[in-house]
Amino acid sequence: MEFQLLAKGIALAGCAIGAGLALIAGIGPGIGEGNAVSKACEAIGRQPECKGDVTSTMLLGCAIAETTGIYGFVTGLLLIFVAPGMFMNFLA
Amino acid sequence: MEFQLLAKGIALAGCAIGAGLALIAGIGPGIGEGNAVSKACEAIGRQPECKGDVTSTMLLGCAIAETTGIYGFVTGLLLIFVAPGMFMNFLA
Amino acid sequence: MEFQLLAKGIALAGCAIGAGLALIAGIGPGIGEGNAVSKACEAIGRQPECKGDVTSTMLLGCAIAETTGIYGFVTGLLLIFVAPGMFMNFLA
Amino acid sequence: MEFQLLAKGIALAGCAIGAGLALIAGIGPGIGEGNAVSKACEAIGRQPECKGDVTSTMLLGCAIAETTGIYGFVTGLLLIFVAPGMFMNFLA
Amino acid sequence: MEFQLLAKGIALAGCAIGAGLALIAGIGPGIGEGNAVSKACEAIGRQPECKGDVTSTMLLGCAIAETTGIYGFVTGLLLIFVAPGMFMNFLA
Amino acid sequence: MEFQLLAKGIALAGCAIGAGLALIAGIGPGIGEGNAVSKACEAIGRQPECKGDVTSTMLLGCAIAETTGIYGFVTGLLLIFVAPGMFMNFLA
Amino acid sequence: MEFQLLAKGIALAGCAIGAGLALIAGIGPGIGEGNAVSKACEAIGRQPECKGDVTSTMLLGCAIAETTGIYGFVTGLLLIFVAPGMFMNFLA
Amino acid sequence: MEFQLLAKGIALAGCAIGAGLALIAGIGPGIGEGNAVSKACEAIGRQPECKGDVTSTMLLGCAIAETTGIYGFVTGLLLIFVAPGMFMNFLA
Amino acid sequence: MEFQLLAKGIALAGCAIGAGLALIAGIGPGIGEGNAVSKACEAIGRQPECKGDVTSTMLLGCAIAETTGIYGFVTGLLLIFVAPGMFMNFLA
Amino acid sequence: MEFQLLAKGIALAGCAIGAGLALIAGIGPGIGEGNAVSKACEAIGRQPECKGDVTSTMLLGCAIAETTGIYGFVTGLLLIFVAPGMFMNFLA
Amino acid sequence: MEFQLLAKGIALAGCAIGAGLALIAGIGPGIGEGNAVSKACEAIGRQPECKGDVTSTMLLGCAIAETTGIYGFVTGLLLIFVAPGMFMNFLA
Amino acid sequence: MEFQLLAKGIALAGCAIGAGLALIAGIGPGIGEGNAVSKACEAIGRQPECKGDVTSTMLLGCAIAETTGIYGFVTGLLLIFVAPGMFMNFLA
Amino acid sequence: MEFQLLAKGIALAGCAIGAGLALIAGIGPGIGEGNAVSKACEAIGRQPECKGDVTSTMLLGCAIAETTGIYGFVTGLLLIFVAPGMFMNFLA
Amino acid sequence: MEFQLLAKGIALAGCAIGAGLALIAGIGPGIGEGNAVSKACEAIGRQPECKGDVTSTMLLGCAIAETTGIYGFVTGLLLIFVAPGMFMNFLA
Repeated sequence: MEFQLLAKGIALAGCAIGAGLALIAGIGPGIGEGNAVSKACEAIGRQPECKGDVTSTMLLGCAIAETTGIYGFVTGLLLIFVAPGMFMNFLA
Repeated sequence: MEFQLLAKGIALAGCAIGAGLALIAGIGPGIGEGNAVSKACEAIGRQPECKGDVTSTMLLGCAIAETTGIYGFVTGLLLIFVAPGMFMNFLA
Repeated sequence: MEFQLLAKGIALAGCAIGAGLALIAGIGPGIGEGNAVSKACEAIGRQPECKGDVTSTMLLGCAIAETTGIYGFVTGLLLIFVAPGMFMNFLA
Repeated sequence: MEFQLLAKGIALAGCAIGAGLALIAGIGPGIGEGNAVSKACEAIGRQPECKGDVTSTMLLGCAIAETTGIYGFVTGLLLIFVAPGMFMNFLA
Repeated sequence: MEFQLLAKGIALAGCAIGAGLALIAGIGPGIGEGNAVSKACEAIGRQPECKGDVTSTMLLGCAIAETTGIYGFVTGLLLIFVAPGMFMNFLA
Repeated sequence: MEFQLLAKGIALAGCAIGAGLALIAGIGPGIGEGNAVSKACEAIGRQPECKGDVTSTMLLGCAIAETTGIYGFVTGLLLIFVAPGMFMNFLA
Repeated sequence: MEFQLLAKGIALAGCAIGAGLALIAGIGPGIGEGNAVSKACEAIGRQPECKGDVTSTMLLGCAIAETTGIYGFVTGLLLIFVAPGMFMNFLA
Repeated sequence: MEFQLLAKGIALAGCAIGAGLALIAGIGPGIGEGNAVSKACEAIGRQPECKGDVTSTMLLGCAIAETTGIYGFVTGLLLIFVAPGMFMNFLA
Repeated sequence: MEFQLLAKGIALAGCAIGAGLALIAGIGPGIGEGNAVSKACEAIGRQPECKGDVTSTMLLGCAIAETTGIYGFVTGLLLIFVAPGMFMNFLA
Repeated sequence: MEFQLLAKGIALAGCAIGAGLALIAGIGPGIGEGNAVSKACEAIGRQPECKGDVTSTMLLGCAIAETTGIYGFVTGLLLIFVAPGMFMNFLA
Repeated sequence: MEFQLLAKGIALAGCAIGAGLALIAGIGPGIGEGNAVSKACEAIGRQPECKGDVTSTMLLGCAIAETTGIYGFVTGLLLIFVAPGMFMNFLA
Repeated sequence: MEFQLLAKGIALAGCAIGAGLALIAGIGPGIGEGNAVSKACEAIGRQPECKGDVTSTMLLGCAIAETTGIYGFVTGLLLIFVAPGMFMNFLA
Repeated sequence: MEFQLLAKGIALAGCAIGAGLALIAGIGPGIGEGNAVSKACEAIGRQPECKGDVTSTMLLGCAIAETTGIYGFVTGLLLIFVAPGMFMNFLA
Repeated sequence: MEFQLLAKGIALAGCAIGAGLALIAGIGPGIGEGNAVSKACEAIGRQPECKGDVTSTMLLGCAIAETTGIYGFVTGLLLIFVAPGMFMNFLA
């Protein structure tokens, strides 16, 4: 019983740290989308009549670029909500 | 009882450090949105009449770029408020 | 039985941290796709009539650039859902 | 009682280090907003009559870019003021 | 039997962490391919009639640049599915 | 009593290191504000008559950019002056 | 027999982590080849008639740049498939 | 008594290392102010008559940018001179 | 006999990790050669008649730049195939 | 007596390492001032008659930029000469 | 005899890891020489008649830039082939 | 006596590693001064008659930029020659 | 005798790892000299008649830039060939 | 006697690793001087008649930039040849 709890504690700490690491992936989309928005603002500032076209492209592109951030978030949530339950069964 | 508490302590320390790591993701949106704002200022400075268009695009884009920062924040909150409670049940 | 559980705990913590590390790969596609979108916005802003061509190229290219992010996500999921089960059999 | 205190010590040290890590996120908004301000100064220097428009855009944009820094600060405060109390209950 | 399981646990944790490290290689192709796509969008935006040539070159080049990401993925999969089985035989 | 002191020592060391980490956030505003000042000097050098406008914008912007540095400083002070006292109560 | 297994476990974990580190070399070719492809797209977009020459140069050059990625992959495979067997003989 | 001293030693070592980490924040103002000075020199070299305006702006801006470096220094001093005394009371 | 095996396990794990580190050197040639290829493509795109000259220079230069990647690969192979045998003799 | 000395050793080692970390802050002023000097040389090379103005600005600015380096040096000296004496009293 | 072997194992693992670290120096020449080759290709593409002069300069320069990579390789070889033998004598 | 020596060994190792860390500050002045020299060469190459002015400015500026490197060196020397003696008295 | 050998093993492992770290300094000259060669090639490509002057300057400059790489190599050799012998005398 | 040797081993390993760290400072002068040489080559290539002036400035500047590399080398030598002897006296 003693070691079982220590093992569980180590596994749960691993889940929490892993979730934190997974979210670091958000640095990428944050920088990338910011650059996309900056260019979109520049383009609209130069030619306001193209606002609709540029904005729809920006939104479409950012939706794609966002995906890796979402993957990181999903993995983080899985490591917090799903993994511990599963892992605890293995240590039951 | 002894080991149970040690296991809990390790798991809780993992939650706190994981929450800190998850927030580091905020570096990305911080830099990216700053760039977006800088280009928006430049565009408005060059053509003040486009202020409405540029500002709305900037706000829309920053709202998207902000998401990965929010993911990190949400994960951090979950690791502080939700995960410990769940984890403690596994170690009960 | 004691050591078996400790071994399982170490292996499961390794899975969770490995999953977090694998997701860090998402920084790359996030930055890269953001750059692609920024250039697409610029091009469309300059020549709105080419919107269809630029958007389809951007989508096609981002789909390719996304792959390494998806690899990281898949590996993360495998390390959370598949690897622990397999690893536990080895430690049974 | 012995191990309880050791467990508490480890968990509290984790909170303090996690709070420090969460604040590192402030590097992002610091650099990003600085760039935004630099472009705003440049734009105003070139066309002083646009000062109102540029300044309001800069303030609006910086308020958004600041958010991830605020998330980090809030998480740090939670890890200092709220988390320890909660964590101590789990270890009581 | 005790040490055998501990040894297996260490080896399996090594596999999981190694798989996570291998996937980090995906940062490279993610950034590189994104740059390639951004230049392709720019080129097509400037000369839409060259879309076929640029797109085929982009696809061909990205297929090559993708390879190191695929190597990382394959190694990750091998470390999850093949290596543990092999390693366990050595520890049988 | 023995373990109580060891636990306190670990928690206090965590506070001190966490305070040091929180201050690292000052790198961001330091670089960002420096860039803002450099552009302001450039603008004033080119058009000395706009000095008032540029300087007030620079000061306003730097005040905002400074905030994340102040968050880090406040967190550092809290980790030195407030957190140890609170933490010690938990370990009393 | 006890220590033999522990030694084997450490050596096998070293192999798995080493394989993961070796694959990180793939970041280089990924970025480098992506740049090569981006310049090739730009060149073809400007002068479509040179497509054959540029593409063959790009393919030849990428084949060379790919080599260090392949070295990393080969080393990773050796560390997974060949090294463990050899190492286990030394520990027999 | 034994453990009391060990606990004090760990806490004091934490203070010293935390002080060192806090000073690293000085990298930011160092680079940022240097850039500000470089632009000021450039501006004065181009238009020596604006020396007064540029210099006063540079001094004002650097005074602001310096703050995060001063925060780091103050935190370092607190961790050396104030924190140890406080911490020792907690361990008395 | 016990310690002999543990010593061998540590030495073999060191070889495997060292081999992984040595391969990281491949990042350099990967980026450098990619840049060389990108400039070659650009040059050929601008003046296709110089293809022979540029390609032969590129190949010659890449062959030289490749050497440090090959050094890393050779060292990795030596650490996998030669060093363990030698090291085991010292531990016999 | 035994543990007292061990505690002192740990605290002193912390002081020495903290002093080393504090000096790393010197990277910032080193790079920043170098940039300032480079721009000053450029300005003087272009307009030698402005040498006095540029040099005095450069010296004034570098004196400010130097401060964070001096903070690091002062902290390092304090950690070597003052902190150990103080810390030893706490461990007496 | 026991400790002798453990000491040897630690020293040999240090040699292997040190050899891996020494090879990382190859990143520098790899990037630098690649840049040199890229400029040489550009120069030859612009003026093919200068191929001889540029190529001989490139080869001469790369031979010099290569030296630090060779130093790293030589040190790696010494740490694999010479140092272990010498070190083992000291531990005989 | 036993623990006294172990404590001294730890403190001395800390001094040596701290000295090494302090010298890393030399990266900053090395890069910064190199940039200053490069601009000076450029300026002299363009206007050889300004050699005296540019060189004296470069020397003056480099003397200032050098200071943080000297701080690091002085701290390193203090940690090697002065600190150990002082520290040993505390451990006497 | 037991501890003597363990102490020797630790010291020798430190020498080997320190030698590896010292060689990392080779990254700097590798990149810097490569840049020098790239500019020399560019200059010669533009004005082939200045080949002698440029080449001799490049060789002279690279010889100076090489020195820090040589320092690292010399230190690495000293740590492999001289330091172990000296260190072993201290541990005799 | 046992602990004396272990303490000596730890201190000597610290010296060796510290020496390696100190040499890393050589990255700075290596990059900086390389940039200086590259600009000198460029300047001489454009105006060969200024070779004497540029070369003497480059040599003078590189001699200054070299100093931090020399500091690192001197510290490394001191940590190898002088510090161990001094440290051993403290541990005698």
